[in-house]
Amino acid sequence: MSARTGSVAGLGKQRVESLTDGIFATVMTILVLSVIVPYVTSPVDFGLTPPDLLPIVSTVLSYALSFVILGVFWVGHHVVFHYIRRTDWALIWLNNVFLLFVGLLPLTSALLGHYPLAQETQILYGLNLIAVGSMLYATFAYATLHHHLVDADLDLRIVRSGQRRILMGPCVASLSILLTSLNTDVSLASFVVFPILFILPGRIDLFWQRQELA
Amino acid sequence: MSARTGSVAGLGKQRVESLTDGIFATVMTILVLSVIVPYVTSPVDFGLTPPDLLPIVSTVLSYALSFVILGVFWVGHHVVFHYIRRTDWALIWLNNVFLLFVGLLPLTSALLGHYPLAQETQILYGLNLIAVGSMLYATFAYATLHHHLVDADLDLRIVRSGQRRILMGPCVASLSILLTSLNTDVSLASFVVFPILFILPGRIDLFWQRQELA
Amino acid sequence: MSARTGSVAGLGKQRVESLTDGIFATVMTILVLSVIVPYVTSPVDFGLTPPDLLPIVSTVLSYALSFVILGVFWVGHHVVFHYIRRTDWALIWLNNVFLLFVGLLPLTSALLGHYPLAQETQILYGLNLIAVGSMLYATFAYATLHHHLVDADLDLRIVRSGQRRILMGPCVASLSILLTSLNTDVSLASFVVFPILFILPGRIDLFWQRQELA
Amino acid sequence: MSARTGSVAGLGKQRVESLTDGIFATVMTILVLSVIVPYVTSPVDFGLTPPDLLPIVSTVLSYALSFVILGVFWVGHHVVFHYIRRTDWALIWLNNVFLLFVGLLPLTSALLGHYPLAQETQILYGLNLIAVGSMLYATFAYATLHHHLVDADLDLRIVRSGQRRILMGPCVASLSILLTSLNTDVSLASFVVFPILFILPGRIDLFWQRQELA
Repeated sequence: MSARTGSVAGLGKQRVESLTDGIFATVMTILVLSVIVPYVTSPVDFGLTPPDLLPIVSTVLSYALSFVILGVFWVGHHVVFHYIRRTDWALIWLNNVFLLFVGLLPLTSALLGHYPLAQETQILYGLNLIAVGSMLYATFAYATLHHHLVDADLDLRIVRSGQRRILMGPCVASLSILLTSLNTDVSLASFVVFPILFILPGRIDLFWQRQELA
Repeated sequence: MSARTGSVAGLGKQRVESLTDGIFATVMTILVLSVIVPYVTSPVDFGLTPPDLLPIVSTVLSYALSFVILGVFWVGHHVVFHYIRRTDWALIWLNNVFLLFVGLLPLTSALLGHYPLAQETQILYGLNLIAVGSMLYATFAYATLHHHLVDADLDLRIVRSGQRRILMGPCVASLSILLTSLNTDVSLASFVVFPILFILPGRIDLFWQRQELA
Repeated sequence: MSARTGSVAGLGKQRVESLTDGIFATVMTILVLSVIVPYVTSPVDFGLTPPDLLPIVSTVLSYALSFVILGVFWVGHHVVFHYIRRTDWALIWLNNVFLLFVGLLPLTSALLGHYPLAQETQILYGLNLIAVGSMLYATFAYATLHHHLVDADLDLRIVRSGQRRILMGPCVASLSILLTSLNTDVSLASFVVFPILFILPGRIDLFWQRQELA
Repeated sequence: MSARTGSVAGLGKQRVESLTDGIFATVMTILVLSVIVPYVTSPVDFGLTPPDLLPIVSTVLSYALSFVILGVFWVGHHVVFHYIRRTDWALIWLNNVFLLFVGLLPLTSALLGHYPLAQETQILYGLNLIAVGSMLYATFAYATLHHHLVDADLDLRIVRSGQRRILMGPCVASLSILLTSLNTDVSLASFVVFPILFILPGRIDLFWQRQELA
C-alpha cells in the first residue's frame, strides 16, 4: 500500500457501505411514522365510516418527496464509493457527518409535512438538503484530492463532472430557499425539481455510457 | 460488457439488494409499532389485572397479514434479482419507486387494522398492493426487455411465466377492491387469499424443479 | 445438485441471512422505544429536577430480558444456517413465519414491561417464546430431514443434539407459563432462566469443541 | 484450527458484524424520533406561522452528540473486529451485551435532551457511555488474551495501545460524571469532549501509519 494513502487498518470500505445502507434503509422507512401517528393513537373502529384522510395528504407528499431525495443521495453515495479504493480516518468521519445530516431528514421532512407553507420549515428543509449534499461533495473532493483514496489513473474528467453534478444539489436547494422569501407556494413546488434533476441522467452518466461503448 | 447494456459504473447489484433487504427488514419490523402504541403510552401497572387485549386483535391480524405479504414481495424481488446481471439508472429508479410503495405499507396496514371494515381503507390497502406488485412487474419487464440486463440465453419461458406470476398479484388485489363495493367482510377475507396464492408453489417453481431434475 | 433438493433458483442463503439479521437488528433496537415514550412526549425541562425514573424500571428490565433472549435466538438461527447448504420454498417460508413471531416480541415485551405481574401478559410472552422457538426447531428439522438441505455427511449426532437444544426453549417457556397459575412473581423470575440456560454452553457446543480438538 | 481456540462452528465473524452494523444503523436513526414526536402529534397547519422550534434545540443537540458518539464506538468496534480472526461463545455474548448497552443510548440520550441540566440524567448518560466502552474493552481484551482469537503474531504494542485507547472512553465519561456534582453546565459541556478525543487520531493510528510507511 502506498505510503501516501494513510489508509487505516480495519476500516474497510465494505462496513462503511454496510452502515450507510442500513442508515438509509431505516431513515427511508421511519419517514412514514410521522404520517401514521394520528391513526395509531386513535382506537380501533369496526364501523363502516372511514377515517379522515385529508389531514395526511401533505405528510404523505412530504414522505414521497423525502424518500425520492434520499434515493438520489443514496445513488450518489453509491457512485462516489464505487471510485473509492481505500478509506482513512478523515473519510470515515466525513461520511459519518454526512450520515448525521441524513438522519435529520425525518425531522425536517415531518416539519415540512406538518407546516408545508411556513417559510421557516421550508428553509430548514432546504438547509438539510444543502448539508447532506455538501458533505457528499466534501467526501468525494477529499477522496479524489491528489487521487489519494482512488485509483491513480482515474480520469480527471470523471472527477470534475462528478463534483459538478454533486454540487448541483446544494445550488438547487439554495435557490429554493431564496424563493421562500417571495412565495412559499412557489418554493414548495421548487423542492420537487431537486430529485427530478438528478433522476434525469446527467453528463457524467452519458460519459460513462460512452466509455462502455468504446 | 455489451454496448447495449448502458450499465452504470458503481451501481452494483449487491448494494441495491442490501438497501432493499434493509428496507424490507425495517418495514416488516415497524409494522408492529402501530399495535404497541396504546400500551406504551399507558403507565406501568404492577397490579394483577391484565390490560384489555380485545382492541388490538384487528391490528395484530393486519400486522400478520402485511408481514406475510411483505414476505411474498421480498421473495419475488429475490427471484427477480437472481436473474438480473447488470443494473442501470432506469432499473435503480424502478426499484426505488418499488421501495417507496413498500414503505407506505405500514401506513395502509395501520389504517386497515384500525378501520378494518371501512371500504376506503380496504381500497387504499388494495391500491398499495397493486402499486408494489406493478413496480415489481415493471422492474422485471424492463430488465428482461431484449434481455438487456439479464443473461442473453435466459429461457423465454422463465421470463413469461415469471411475469405472469408477478401480474397475478395486482389482479388478485383488484378483485379484492371490486369486492369492497359488495361487502367489506367478504373483501377483507379476500385479502388473505393474496399471500396464500403466492406461498403455494406456482408453475414457474415447478418449471425450476423440472430443470433441476434434468 | 441433487434432484431431491427442490432448491429454488435465486433464493440464496445469503439474502435470507441478510433479511434475518436486519429484522433482528431492528427488533432489538425498537424494543427501547416503549421505554422512551413517556419522556419524549413530555416537554423539555431546563430545571435541575430530574425526571421520575421509577416508572421505567420494569420496562427497562423487560427490554434487557427481551434483548438477551433475541440474542439467544439470533445465535440459534446463526448455528442452524451454518449447516444449511441450500434453500427451498418451504425453508424460506418456515423462516418467514419464524421472523413474524420474532417481530411480535416488541409487543409482548412492552406488555410484560407495562403489566409485569398480570398472568395474561406473562402467558402471552411465554407463548411468543414458544412460537419463535418452535419455528426455529421446524426450520432445522425440515432442513435436516433426509439431510436434503444440509451436507449429506452431516453427523446425525449434531442433528439430534442441535434439535434437542432448540426444543429446550419451548419446554422452559412452557414451564414458566405453568408457573403463572401459581404465583406471577415466581413465574416472572423464571423467564430470566430462559436465556441463562442457552448462554451456558450446551452439550452440542462441547461436542463441537471436541471435534476441533480431534 | 488450534485446539485452544474453542471457536464455534457457524458463528462466523461476518454475521456478527452484520448484526452489529444493523443495530448501530437503527440506533443512530431512531435517535431522531424523540425530537420529532412533538410535531407529528400536532395537526397539519397550512398557515404561514412556523412551529415553535426553540423547545427542540436541546434534543437536536443531544441527537447530534449521541450520533457522533455512536460513530466513535462503531469505528472502535470496526477496528477491534479487524484484528479478530475467530469467534467463540464468550466473544459473541460479550458483543451482545455491548449491543444491549448501545441499544439503551436512545433512552439516555432522550433523557439528556429533555432534562439537560438535571444531574441524574447526566449521570445516567455517562454510565451508559462507560458501559458501552467497558464492554468494547472487554471484547478486545478477551479476544487478545493469549492471542487466542487474533493472529498469533499480532504485535503486542497494537494490543496494548488499542486497549489504552478504548479505556480512555470510560475514563473521560467518569470525569464528566464527577463534574456533575460541581456544576451541570460544565459537565454537560464536558460530554462534548468525549467524541472529540476519539475523532482526533490517537497514538495507535499514528502507529498504523508508521507501519504502512515501513
